[in-house]
Amino acid sequence: MASFLRTASRVRPAAFRSITRPSSKIAIPAVPTALHRHMASAAAAAATSSDASEQPFFPDEPRGPTVKTAIPGPKSSEAIDKLSKVFETRSLNMMANYQTSIGNYISDLDGNVLLDVYAQIASIPVGYNNPNLLKAATSPEMASALINRPALGNFPQHDWADILETGILKVAPKGLNQVFTSQSGSDANELAYKAAFMWKRQQERGGAHVDFTHAEISSAMQNASPGAPDLSILSFESAFHGRLFGSLSTTRSKPIHKLDIPAFNWPQAPFPACKYPLDEHGAENAAEEQRCLDETERLIKEWPQPPAAVVVEPIQSEGGDNHASPAFFQGLRALTRKHGVLFIVDEVQTGVGATGKFWAHEHWNLADPPDMVTFSKKAQTAGYYFGNKELRPNKPYRQFNTWMGDPARALLFRAIVQEIERLGLVENTAVVGDYLYGGLERLAQRYPEEIRNLRGKGQGTFLAWDSPRRDEVLKKAKTVGVNIGGSGESAVRLRPMLIFQKHHADILLESLEKIFKS
Amino acid sequence: MASFLRTASRVRPAAFRSITRPSSKIAIPAVPTALHRHMASAAAAAATSSDASEQPFFPDEPRGPTVKTAIPGPKSSEAIDKLSKVFETRSLNMMANYQTSIGNYISDLDGNVLLDVYAQIASIPVGYNNPNLLKAATSPEMASALINRPALGNFPQHDWADILETGILKVAPKGLNQVFTSQSGSDANELAYKAAFMWKRQQERGGAHVDFTHAEISSAMQNASPGAPDLSILSFESAFHGRLFGSLSTTRSKPIHKLDIPAFNWPQAPFPACKYPLDEHGAENAAEEQRCLDETERLIKEWPQPPAAVVVEPIQSEGGDNHASPAFFQGLRALTRKHGVLFIVDEVQTGVGATGKFWAHEHWNLADPPDMVTFSKKAQTAGYYFGNKELRPNKPYRQFNTWMGDPARALLFRAIVQEIERLGLVENTAVVGDYLYGGLERLAQRYPEEIRNLRGKGQGTFLAWDSPRRDEVLKKAKTVGVNIGGSGESAVRLRPMLIFQKHHADILLESLEKIFKS
Repeated sequence: MASFLRTASRVRPAAFRSITRPSSKIAIPAVPTALHRHMASAAAAAATSSDASEQPFFPDEPRGPTVKTAIPGPKSSEAIDKLSKVFETRSLNMMANYQTSIGNYISDLDGNVLLDVYAQIASIPVGYNNPNLLKAATSPEMASALINRPALGNFPQHDWADILETGILKVAPKGLNQVFTSQSGSDANELAYKAAFMWKRQQERGGAHVDFTHAEISSAMQNASPGAPDLSILSFESAFHGRLFGSLSTTRSKPIHKLDIPAFNWPQAPFPACKYPLDEHGAENAAEEQRCLDETERLIKEWPQPPAAVVVEPIQSEGGDNHASPAFFQGLRALTRKHGVLFIVDEVQTGVGATGKFWAHEHWNLADPPDMVTFSKKAQTAGYYFGNKELRPNKPYRQFNTWMGDPARALLFRAIVQEIERLGLVENTAVVGDYLYGGLERLAQRYPEEIRNLRGKGQGTFLAWDSPRRDEVLKKAKTVGVNIGGSGESAVRLRPMLIFQKHHADILLESLEKIFKS
Repeated sequence: MASFLRTASRVRPAAFRSITRPSSKIAIPAVPTALHRHMASAAAAAATSSDASEQPFFPDEPRGPTVKTAIPGPKSSEAIDKLSKVFETRSLNMMANYQTSIGNYISDLDGNVLLDVYAQIASIPVGYNNPNLLKAATSPEMASALINRPALGNFPQHDWADILETGILKVAPKGLNQVFTSQSGSDANELAYKAAFMWKRQQERGGAHVDFTHAEISSAMQNASPGAPDLSILSFESAFHGRLFGSLSTTRSKPIHKLDIPAFNWPQAPFPACKYPLDEHGAENAAEEQRCLDETERLIKEWPQPPAAVVVEPIQSEGGDNHASPAFFQGLRALTRKHGVLFIVDEVQTGVGATGKFWAHEHWNLADPPDMVTFSKKAQTAGYYFGNKELRPNKPYRQFNTWMGDPARALLFRAIVQEIERLGLVENTAVVGDYLYGGLERLAQRYPEEIRNLRGKGQGTFLAWDSPRRDEVLKKAKTVGVNIGGSGESAVRLRPMLIFQKHHADILLESLEKIFKS
């Protein structure tokens, strides 16, 4: 049972160290700020080759994974049994010990330490037990935000504008300078949809000054048109936008996400089925993208419940890591503008640095920005950005709920943003992503059956490929010390943290080869 | 402009103290545990009369409100202007300074200190800057939960079962021993609805072992029946269950909550229009309740999209503080059982102690518990409780999302539960509620035009009445040092914290009289 395996990185193969440390307290490595600053530039400079000069962002990280037992091991199994009595565990992947997890490495109770390139479904940005996040988490501001949680729409805290401006809004996508905060990605998308419906009806009504009619008011209370209008949100085949009722109506990823749940009769357009690498199939892909744009336009014009907005992910993530070219998204922006439909970009999974840009849609070079951009996951808080003031509903309390976000999580996002800037992590994912992509390309040449449709070139570390035995690969990955996730029916998706470096890429590539050889 | 007013409590009228304290750090009163324990019993013992022997839960609380400026004052106005540029402020009630707020008192930047009987829309349980919550918020466990937020369905933390069992599940409603955690009240209700739909379809299908048909799988991906079934959730007129798309379809509170948002064609039953006090209009109310039960049954049997569940609030809160008798809710439980429909009790606003019971539905003495109970607000975390294992979907990933709750907020709820138990706060709300109700009754006799339909007798501090000039009363309340909220069209609703005591009730009653006299 106890298959023992020790994978050392190429960088410093000799000095493997255990990360076992006192477990009663969170042991955090001391990382002097000056050293970190040095590292940021060093990382950028040294990032063209995996040589020994690459400085680790987490100096106390283990040099490689440790696999001591089957996963789950005996202690984890006991904890899983206990949890199963009161909580859903059938989707459990690994029972984690976050006290001993550090940087890119996730630990469990049995002493297993895995390189984590799944990162809580793409939601851990700057490493487990990041020392600067710990500082933010133990600040007096954080304590107050936790114990005095405000109803932000009614009783905001006096420094809420500052917290927004130095955090969430500091990284607002170009052209969008306002935010409505929320609690999760699904929530963020649904609030954006609501803003879209209110805007659309206001356009139809003739402006913000035109009052609701009696018919609208009374029918709204009956869940009927015109007050509850027969409008829709257009999304794409294989899209994932969340699992609440409105967001689930735009999600088209897998039946298991949707079965037995009532849904709105909203349209789905085909998402381009591109060939990879995108740049080697330019003409074919362009034709496919045009076909999808044409069908989108037809649906906008003809669907009986006209769309108030089109929502799209820059890279379809849960749906199988499907990419399209900037031209496709530029086409969508043009189409939506032409037909008076809003353009919502769902950056819940792609946002916050992983694609080599802070927001993935920056790759599109839009002259005319999206109307709304939603975020969650690596931001550790959620919401939607917008710029056009007409997207503020014309009366108060139309877009409202008790908490309207969470200052505690907004403070954490601010610390994340600071860490990203200090360490140059967006640049890091661009450089390390290219390095990793190159390694995967070479692996694909040697194991063409194992790595098919490699994709994500130029998209940072947001990489994926198809595997004919995907679930087996993911399972075996743990036995060689790596935690990896899948997406769609057959994709292996890499979602490392922003602090993933070349020496981690080397470990990952070696581990993959071990799996492919087995 | 600077209308100065100082309202001292009856308890210790001489010793008014300002609560101004160093603002750069959170100044927390030291409250020795032993003293607090003493207070708990003292509160229970002394609670039959408002005499000087009543010990305050927060000894450093001000003795009464301070109103130094119009609200908002100059400093608050400046902060509001700044916030307005980037965030919704048209619903802003008061720009708060939580660093200087304490216990039942909310402060602002202009030195105004108000007795807060609205408490962040009924969501602050045990006082601003509660010292024991501060301990939990500054614990190493909390820091780890904040910076290592897990995807609980995939990678739960090893002590998640412990955190649940010593917190959220420790106070689980009778008969319900499992929980699905979420992020907000709307979210909690929608997840409960999803569980209900999956359960209902499973019943129709013939059990957990029966697989989905091809037709279900393909139609679900098209948002069409049978995969996306034509089922519904039945709710009541004036109900409030949240503002996301599914929850909003069950919300029937106000047009402004619903206008321009597409909704499902789901049924609403009439909620009893009872006369108050309930016990003085027994026969009339019983007939009205029977009428509503009959109509509920008719809708269950006849609505074209059959209900999978009936959802109800123990006291309709946002919808105007509408009460019904235990017999009505017992009738609903019997009806839903009879027709194979689930019974969901929405305790988002009523839960966690304010009604003199931990859960308001305990007042009903049900032999057969609700199928699901949802919670949020004072729990500072959210989710739904259930007992029947058939409510666990038959496959993993059917009820799933990235975070599935938040261990940080679960740790906070654990500290809240401990504080409630240590101070006997459920007993406190029962006793203080009776005292306050008595005072309001006397006020109503003197000012019958100002306090109409006083309600909530025997329901702790969860009290309300109708006012012909409600909005004016709420506005004037600030000028006499009290922060109060409204509900529905004309109700003044009291939602004090659980640490609201008789001396606070005295201040509130005096303040109300000042308003009525003006």
